[in-house]
Amino acid sequence: MEFKSYSSLSDAIISSKKFPYNPKKRTVDIMNSVGFYSCAEIHSPDDFPKYSKSAVDGFAIQSRNTISSTRTNPSYFKIIGESSPEKDFNGSVREGEAVKIYTGGKLPEGTDSVVMMEDTEIFSDEVKIFVPVRKFQNVSLRGEDIEKGYVLVRKGGRITPPHLVAFLEVGIKMIEIYDFRIGIISTGNEIVNGRVINSTQPFLREYLKWNGLEADCLGTVQDDENEIRKKIEQENHDIFIITGGTGPSDRDVLTNFLENNATKIFHGLKIRPARTTGLYIYNGRPIFIISGLPVAALIAAENIFLPIISHWTGIELSKKNYVEGRLSRSIVNTLGFRSFVRVRIDRNYDPPMIIPVRVTGSGVIYSIIDADGILEVDENSEGFQEGDTVKVELLRW
Amino acid sequence: MEFKSYSSLSDAIISSKKFPYNPKKRTVDIMNSVGFYSCAEIHSPDDFPKYSKSAVDGFAIQSRNTISSTRTNPSYFKIIGESSPEKDFNGSVREGEAVKIYTGGKLPEGTDSVVMMEDTEIFSDEVKIFVPVRKFQNVSLRGEDIEKGYVLVRKGGRITPPHLVAFLEVGIKMIEIYDFRIGIISTGNEIVNGRVINSTQPFLREYLKWNGLEADCLGTVQDDENEIRKKIEQENHDIFIITGGTGPSDRDVLTNFLENNATKIFHGLKIRPARTTGLYIYNGRPIFIISGLPVAALIAAENIFLPIISHWTGIELSKKNYVEGRLSRSIVNTLGFRSFVRVRIDRNYDPPMIIPVRVTGSGVIYSIIDADGILEVDENSEGFQEGDTVKVELLRW
Repeated sequence: MEFKSYSSLSDAIISSKKFPYNPKKRTVDIMNSVGFYSCAEIHSPDDFPKYSKSAVDGFAIQSRNTISSTRTNPSYFKIIGESSPEKDFNGSVREGEAVKIYTGGKLPEGTDSVVMMEDTEIFSDEVKIFVPVRKFQNVSLRGEDIEKGYVLVRKGGRITPPHLVAFLEVGIKMIEIYDFRIGIISTGNEIVNGRVINSTQPFLREYLKWNGLEADCLGTVQDDENEIRKKIEQENHDIFIITGGTGPSDRDVLTNFLENNATKIFHGLKIRPARTTGLYIYNGRPIFIISGLPVAALIAAENIFLPIISHWTGIELSKKNYVEGRLSRSIVNTLGFRSFVRVRIDRNYDPPMIIPVRVTGSGVIYSIIDADGILEVDENSEGFQEGDTVKVELLRW
Repeated sequence: MEFKSYSSLSDAIISSKKFPYNPKKRTVDIMNSVGFYSCAEIHSPDDFPKYSKSAVDGFAIQSRNTISSTRTNPSYFKIIGESSPEKDFNGSVREGEAVKIYTGGKLPEGTDSVVMMEDTEIFSDEVKIFVPVRKFQNVSLRGEDIEKGYVLVRKGGRITPPHLVAFLEVGIKMIEIYDFRIGIISTGNEIVNGRVINSTQPFLREYLKWNGLEADCLGTVQDDENEIRKKIEQENHDIFIITGGTGPSDRDVLTNFLENNATKIFHGLKIRPARTTGLYIYNGRPIFIISGLPVAALIAAENIFLPIISHWTGIELSKKNYVEGRLSRSIVNTLGFRSFVRVRIDRNYDPPMIIPVRVTGSGVIYSIIDADGILEVDENSEGFQEGDTVKVELLRW
């Protein structure tokens, strides 16, 4: 049995955008923030470095007195103290005076540059300087790395390890991240009775985690409208993904339940695989549905669920990377359907050889283990010929 | 002060390979295995599918009796039962008999193909078949997805979400992963007394975690050889990374401690940044050392620590991805040094514009937040000119 009509992927995504979804937020310690998404633009509250400091070991001086210094005609400075990362020099430096300074030491008041140790010679309490020194030479100026007000993370940006460095250095201790949990439910008597292994549910959880989203496996329910309703109502997740029973036939209990009780955004897509993917809103909570097959779940999660959740929340998914290469054999597409073809990439060729993974059955787990990327074939394309140059999206792992 | 001599990056990596490092292993539940590295090649213990099954809703039959079937001249089969994912048909199917079958249902004994529901018509206990059916049509054959013996994960391969699906489907419940923990210690009085913020230590932990390695922050110790020794000996980590005091001068306590007590593999590299990076073996445990600056730590971790650990253990680091583009401004390199230049990539141009991030000081955290990739400039290169075509390695986040 078939759906009465199928939406294109782009129409489906457009219609989902009309649903106003406002995710909750929560505040976390920055030490636990890496991998999550910031829900606000984060500005630096301070300059970094907080003060100007030396980038080398040497002597802090006023540069203008060194203009004509050479090895045979050095300039002379009186050493009046020391500045190191551990201890500042407190006091002001006047013309003709120098402060011994170590890498990271605060630049003393009155100085504007540092001459490197190897361009000097110490003689009792004096230092000879053999080279001319420019203003700010060997100095890390206050705020030169991060200026107060700089945007450290965009709204929706994912927190990465380098952000942690910046937060620590400029004194940000807590940040707000999106706080929504995705609950994954599987339906199907064949799963409940254990005849079919439920690999899609843990797969989806790990896939979502890999992408920085919080998801829980919520177990399995019978193909029974009341059981499905009870399950959804007892869980307090913000978004659901429900697998199984997503076809258009009477035996597809999940479809029936949602058709009768929820608002349909779309259901049935002109894509392969994952054409039974749908989105409904039930009591204000989005419910994505997808066939129980892991490959369909992967394609739906990557190309439908994540982009829609990203639109709703503003989270920035990691940039997709592409590789161009030549197709090792032709691919036939059914006009009107967008196909997601799993491919391997052989980089021993130049340009790389793009090898479609042979797919016969419908589960075809091996096709996603063995694949390096996905080649999308447009609804209006009849496919590609052997030798065609194609652009392949790299999988995120 | 300078090192007596500097090694090239490639020499350093070659010398580290001579150290025989055998990481421990531990067995984990597959549900907790995603993101880690397998220490053995994992073969499938079984076929998947475990039995041949239908890929559609329809009727399972012997195909040879349908060769001349057409809409006006259908072939007739007697319906003798039903097979679904929930319940097999137990019995053997003879010529002229059909079993109603649902997607995922086990193919009954005696049948070799499935005709789709829409190409049939049911009439009482008979079904008319309007099309010729090929052998194995609409059937997922036993083992067609994963054959017994297939390699599911290579030795050292990282476990990704799709592997979890395969493990579940073929009945793998536990796997062996590498079991080594990296301990990160920071030295420096300026960090102990709180004048300098220790952002490099948590950065390294998150960076290693991001790459699937287990690492702990072990705190900070004074610039004191005995304190450093005590710290290392009280921790039972397998590999250490110690930051700070890595230069060649007398004030570099960590260098002194290791020079006197450990076996040097290399120390001092012809690279920029991170030229004070080193590797020593202390009582059989590798100790990587690196300056306390986060940018140096990133470059050392990415280009030195991870490749060496990968060599020792066999873990497969994620493939590096590259982008080619044109340089927006020239870069000058010091001959003899390999430079790692942080760049942004503007994909609004074709080819993309590669924009070196302006770097003045030495901390320059913003350069790693703002960067999309790293452009390596070879020891033998004087740099690149504006407009040159260059290949940039994309950062892993």
